[in-house]
Amino acid sequence: MAEDEDLIDRSADTPNEPQSSGRYGLERRTVAAILDAVESGDATLLTQLMEPLHPADIADLLEQIDRDDRRALIRLYGKEFDGDILSELGESIREDVISVLNPQVLADAVRELDSDDVVDLLEDLEAPQQDAILDALEDADRVAVQQAMTYPEYSAGRLMQREVVMAPEHWSVGEAIDFLRNSEDLPDQFYHVVLVDPRLHPVGNVTLGKIMRSRRDVALRDITEDAFHLIPVTQYDGDVAYAFNQYHLISAPVVDEDGRLVGVITIDDAMAVLDEEHEEDILRMAGVSEDASLSDTILEAARGRAVWLFVNLLTAILASLVIDAFAETINQMVALAVLMPIVASMGGNAGTQTMTVAVRSIATRDLTAQNAMRVIWREVSVGALNGVVFGLLMALVAGVWFGVPMLAAVIGVAMLLTQVAAALGGIVIPMALERLKIDPALASGPFVTTVTDVVGFFAFLGLASAVLM
Amino acid sequence: MAEDEDLIDRSADTPNEPQSSGRYGLERRTVAAILDAVESGDATLLTQLMEPLHPADIADLLEQIDRDDRRALIRLYGKEFDGDILSELGESIREDVISVLNPQVLADAVRELDSDDVVDLLEDLEAPQQDAILDALEDADRVAVQQAMTYPEYSAGRLMQREVVMAPEHWSVGEAIDFLRNSEDLPDQFYHVVLVDPRLHPVGNVTLGKIMRSRRDVALRDITEDAFHLIPVTQYDGDVAYAFNQYHLISAPVVDEDGRLVGVITIDDAMAVLDEEHEEDILRMAGVSEDASLSDTILEAARGRAVWLFVNLLTAILASLVIDAFAETINQMVALAVLMPIVASMGGNAGTQTMTVAVRSIATRDLTAQNAMRVIWREVSVGALNGVVFGLLMALVAGVWFGVPMLAAVIGVAMLLTQVAAALGGIVIPMALERLKIDPALASGPFVTTVTDVVGFFAFLGLASAVLM
Repeated sequence: MAEDEDLIDRSADTPNEPQSSGRYGLERRTVAAILDAVESGDATLLTQLMEPLHPADIADLLEQIDRDDRRALIRLYGKEFDGDILSELGESIREDVISVLNPQVLADAVRELDSDDVVDLLEDLEAPQQDAILDALEDADRVAVQQAMTYPEYSAGRLMQREVVMAPEHWSVGEAIDFLRNSEDLPDQFYHVVLVDPRLHPVGNVTLGKIMRSRRDVALRDITEDAFHLIPVTQYDGDVAYAFNQYHLISAPVVDEDGRLVGVITIDDAMAVLDEEHEEDILRMAGVSEDASLSDTILEAARGRAVWLFVNLLTAILASLVIDAFAETINQMVALAVLMPIVASMGGNAGTQTMTVAVRSIATRDLTAQNAMRVIWREVSVGALNGVVFGLLMALVAGVWFGVPMLAAVIGVAMLLTQVAAALGGIVIPMALERLKIDPALASGPFVTTVTDVVGFFAFLGLASAVLM
Repeated sequence: MAEDEDLIDRSADTPNEPQSSGRYGLERRTVAAILDAVESGDATLLTQLMEPLHPADIADLLEQIDRDDRRALIRLYGKEFDGDILSELGESIREDVISVLNPQVLADAVRELDSDDVVDLLEDLEAPQQDAILDALEDADRVAVQQAMTYPEYSAGRLMQREVVMAPEHWSVGEAIDFLRNSEDLPDQFYHVVLVDPRLHPVGNVTLGKIMRSRRDVALRDITEDAFHLIPVTQYDGDVAYAFNQYHLISAPVVDEDGRLVGVITIDDAMAVLDEEHEEDILRMAGVSEDASLSDTILEAARGRAVWLFVNLLTAILASLVIDAFAETINQMVALAVLMPIVASMGGNAGTQTMTVAVRSIATRDLTAQNAMRVIWREVSVGALNGVVFGLLMALVAGVWFGVPMLAAVIGVAMLLTQVAAALGGIVIPMALERLKIDPALASGPFVTTVTDVVGFFAFLGLASAVLM
C-alpha cells in the first residue's frame, strides 16, 4: 500500500485552484525504464518495475507501446502476467496479446478472473481464442460463462455477476449476521443483501452498513433501501447504466422473465458501460466508427472513416448541383462564388450546434414528446435571432468588401434563412430518426449537413439571381 | 417497494434481443395526469400521482413542462416538496424553483439533505439565494457547508462527504464490529472502513463484506483492499472521476495537504462527474456552451452559440479571401466555383474525424508523449489513403461531369492534399493546444476548420490557375 502515498498531490501550493494535471496513469519515465528493461532482457528488473502498477495502467502501457515492444515485454514478463490486465485491454490489442501469451500463462491468467470478466473477455474474441480460454476454465466456471454467453450481447445478463448474497425476506438482522459470518463462499465485493420471497423474487435491498448498525432483532424488511430497482436480464446495458445514474443505485438485482433473481449488477460495471456509451456517441457523431481505437491499423482506421466520407461526398455533390444550376449567375458576378461558402459554413455550424443539443437531450431523455413542440420553437427562435445578428454583420462585411448594396442585402437575407433552416433541421432530423428507431447520433450529421448546404447555396444564389441579375 | 415490480420488462418476448426501449423515466400518461391534476387544482390527486416517482424523475418532469405549469405544480404540491428534487434539478430551472418555493418549504427541504448535496446546490446559486439556504440550516451543518465551500470549485473537497467511518490501523475485525454496532451516528451509506494511523493518515480500506466474513481475531490491516487510492482535497473532480473509472474504486479517502483524512468520495459521486464531463466535452466540441440546457431561455441559448458562430464567421471570411485571390481564375472557368466546396467539405469532415479521435484519446489518456509520433504518422497515413481513394473517385466524377481531363486531375490532387492536411491538422492541433494547457475539446474545431478550408480552396484553385489557365 505504501507506494500509493506518492499519489498525494503535494504540489498543491495554490489551494484555491483545483489540480488539473492528472497524477494518475503512467509516468513517462516509468515507461522508459520498462522499455529499457525489456530491451536489455532483464526479467527481474521488469517484474520489479511492473509490480507497483495497477493492471489498468499496465494495459494502457501495452496499448501505447508498439507491437514489437509489446510482444517482447509479454514474453519477458512471462508467468507474472495477470488476468486482470487482459480484462483492461482494448479489444484490438487484446487479441494480439492473447496470441502471444504462453497457453499455460493464459490459462492461469483466465482462471483468476470472475466469471463476468471472463464473459467480457470472450465476447470480442474469435472462436479459436474463445475455445482456448473456455478450455482453461474449471468445469463449474465454464458452465457459468457459457450460460452467460446465451444472453444477448449488450444485455444485463452479460453484465451481471451471478454470485448474489441473498436472504429470505422474513429474516432478522441477527439471522443475517450469523449467516454472513458463517458463509464460506461470499463474493469478493458485495455491498447489499438482496431479500427474496420464497419464489426467489427480490423484494428489497439491505446495505451491509444498515445491517451493521441495526439491533439483532430488527426485521431486514424494515431497513431496506428506498432506491430499489429490478433489472430485467434482457435489458439493454445502456438502459441499465441510465438507471444507475438516474436513481443513484449502488447495486441492483437482475431478474429473469419470471421475476426470479438470477444475478446482481454493481455500479462499477454500470459506470464502465456509461463511459463506453459516451465514447461511442462522440465518435459516432463525428462520423468515426464507434469502436475506433488508437491501436487500429491504418487500413482499419481508413475504412472506419471512409463510410462517412463517402456519404459526405454524395451530399457535397448534391450541394454542388445546386451551385451548378446557378453557374450563369456566378459567371456574371464572381463575388457570389467568393461569398457563398460563408453562408453554407455558418449554416453547417449552426446545424451541428442544434443537432448536438438535440442528440444529447434525446440520449439523456430530456427531450420528450412532452416538450418537443416547445423545444422546436425555441431552437427556431434561437436560429432566427442569430440569423438576424449574423445576417446584419455579414451584410455589413459584404457591403464594405464589394460595395454592392443589393449583394449585401442578398447575403444578409440568405444568412437568416439558412440559420433558421439549420435550426429546424438540427432539431427535427434527430427527433425523426429517433422516432424511426435509427440512432440519431450516428445518422443526423449527413442529413443536417445536406439541409444546410442545399438551403445555404440555394437561398444565396437564388436570391442573387432574382435580385441582382 | 411493490410499485417497482412493474419495472420488470415483461415485454421481452424476443429473448435474444436486448431491450433498447427504456422502461425508466416518465411515462407520457403519468405526465399528462399530473398536469391535469395541477390544472384542476387537485392537491390530493397530485400528491398521490407524485408519490411513486423518484426525485430524479420529478426533477425531469419539472424541467420538461413549461414555466407556468411548473410554478402552478410547485405551489399546489406545497410542503410535499422534497430536498432531493432540488439536488436533481438542472441549474437554470433550480433558481426558478427556489424563487417560487415557500421559504418554510425551502428550509425544510434543504435541512433533509446531506451536507455534500447542499454544497452542490449552493454552488450554482446567486448570493441572496445562497444566504436563504444557509440560514435555513442548523448551525453545525451550516459550518460544514461553509467549510466545504472554501475548497475550490470542481475540487475533490466540494465532492466529498465529510462523514467518514474510520478505525485505528491496529484494530481487529472484532473491535471494528463492536465499534460499528455501538455507533449512534454512522452515515446513511457507507461501504468501507478507512484505516488510519495515529496522525490520521489513511493506510487502507476494508470493505464491510470482508469484515462480515472474517474471524473476529483477524487484523483489519490484513484484509485491506488492493485498490486503494488517496485523493488530494484540491484535486480536480475530473481527475477524481478518471481514477474511479480507471482503478474500479468504490470509495476513496480524501486527504488534506498534510495527508490527513478529511472526507471520502464514493463512486456514485464520481459517476455523476464522469457523466457531466462527457456531456460538456460533447457540447464543447460542437461549439455549444458547455452548460447549455434545454431549459435555457432563447436569449441564453443564442448567446451561448453566437461565440462559436462568430469565430466561424472569421475563419469562413479568411477562406473566402483565398477564393477572392483566385476570382480571375473562377471567372474564366465557373466549374471551379461549382466543385470547390466539395474539396473543402471533404477536408472539413476528415479533419473533424481525426480531431475527435485525438481529443478523445487525450481525454482518456491514451494519446501520450510515448506514442505521439506513431499516432501522428498513422493519422497522416490514414489521410493519405482516403485522400487517394476519394481523390480518384472525385476525379472520375468531375471528369464525367465537366469533360475536362485536367480539371479532373486538379480536383483529384487537391483532394489528396486537403485530406493529408486535414489529418495532420486534426491530430497536431489538439496535441499542441493540450501542451499549451488550452482545452482541446473547446478550441480545436475553429483551427482545424480554418486549416482544411484554406488548404482546400488554395490547393484546388491554385492548382487550377497553374495548370488550367
